[in-house]
Amino acid sequence: MTLKYYHAEPAANSLKSMIPLKEKGLEFESHYVDLHKFEQHSEWFVKLNPEGQVPVLIHNDQIITQTSVINEYLEDVFPEVPLRPYDPVGKARVRAWNKFVDEHVMNHVSMHGWHRMVGVIARSIDGGEFESLLERIPLPDQRKKWATARSGFSEADLANATDKIIYACAKVETQLGESLWLAGDMFTTADINFYAMCGMMVERMFPELEVAEKYPRLIDWRDRMNARPGVKAALEMPDHTAPGLRTFTGHVR
Amino acid sequence: MTLKYYHAEPAANSLKSMIPLKEKGLEFESHYVDLHKFEQHSEWFVKLNPEGQVPVLIHNDQIITQTSVINEYLEDVFPEVPLRPYDPVGKARVRAWNKFVDEHVMNHVSMHGWHRMVGVIARSIDGGEFESLLERIPLPDQRKKWATARSGFSEADLANATDKIIYACAKVETQLGESLWLAGDMFTTADINFYAMCGMMVERMFPELEVAEKYPRLIDWRDRMNARPGVKAALEMPDHTAPGLRTFTGHVR
Repeated sequence: MTLKYYHAEPAANSLKSMIPLKEKGLEFESHYVDLHKFEQHSEWFVKLNPEGQVPVLIHNDQIITQTSVINEYLEDVFPEVPLRPYDPVGKARVRAWNKFVDEHVMNHVSMHGWHRMVGVIARSIDGGEFESLLERIPLPDQRKKWATARSGFSEADLANATDKIIYACAKVETQLGESLWLAGDMFTTADINFYAMCGMMVERMFPELEVAEKYPRLIDWRDRMNARPGVKAALEMPDHTAPGLRTFTGHVR
Repeated sequence: MTLKYYHAEPAANSLKSMIPLKEKGLEFESHYVDLHKFEQHSEWFVKLNPEGQVPVLIHNDQIITQTSVINEYLEDVFPEVPLRPYDPVGKARVRAWNKFVDEHVMNHVSMHGWHRMVGVIARSIDGGEFESLLERIPLPDQRKKWATARSGFSEADLANATDKIIYACAKVETQLGESLWLAGDMFTTADINFYAMCGMMVERMFPELEVAEKYPRLIDWRDRMNARPGVKAALEMPDHTAPGLRTFTGHVR
């Protein structure tokens, strides 16, 4: 077996590269990384990815990290079931959407998710243990994010994140008035990105945004996403989230 | 002529896609957009790019925006002089670096540049006129950035941006101990990105960082970049920056 995928629960980043693997029907060795136990910062994992982040794809002993990079890699190597158009203008459209989600959506949904979930985890650990966990986190930005999650993000930061999520939902709604999928009439990694990072859970996570009423095309698109065999198969991967922590995806509020 | 490039001065974003055009020896129609006159927010320009940002590439009437997307597009369409490896693992390496520069470098150098340059412009305009200029800015984030540039960024935000620039310089220095260029032994768009956004001007802009002393490989790499014919040709494009505003690139402090 040449493909190995190191991942956590089928949500957010771990889901984002799981869906292409499943949509393409690729066989892979699944390696579960337990975020509850901070395995992503453990010595064995940091050897694979010095940044200490899931997911990681290993193909023929080559390590690929960063979900958007992994998804382009899968298109380059396994184009038989394409999730990126062949024409360069189409590719540019997909990349512009992926860039938008990576830079203007992901972190904002993530902040709310962290505020709810990682905050619970972080506060359940006592001070000294928490400090030594922080020290193991390779990326300075991630270290700051964990420390902030423990104390709680500020209301102003959370409100700003909500504004960005509203902007993104409106942008998606407008686009879906013009094309069937985000980057045109073909289902692509742009849809997968927005779905995994926001679209899948935005209605559940933010009932106050009245997503179903305000963004009906987004809801229709989400339901079309949910119905895809590859998406279904990815969502059926084991979910070990402790029940009290099902906050990130909005199952518990 | 099938290629048109709408751009400002040869620095930062406008330079980032100018270098590949020149390195590849492509003929293009140059259209100067005068940022001093806020032309990027004018009606005619916003018709090309609804986000009101330079640069814009037009190829056979197709509009491509976002420098990293433009640069991938140029690789897809004009691979004769390649700035991206042919093998997928090499491509992944280039994309990971480009993602790093886009998400963790560009905005931080830009904040210092804006603080120095746009602040001067913004404060030179009277209140009422400034408000109506703000209203023309399509992207909410850009509108906020202009408003903040007028009042000045906070010391804490500027210090945080400096930390990120230090992190980036150290990361580049380490990489250049392992390979000739950022993404391996081939000169790629990753080098062009870091050069245009930071490497070209970091020593001039931040003398307090002692770049030459602390990051000698970065300086050697920058000099190799400066010597490339495509880079030289791009830097020779007209620079209409008002002399008192040559702050962004560190020529005036």
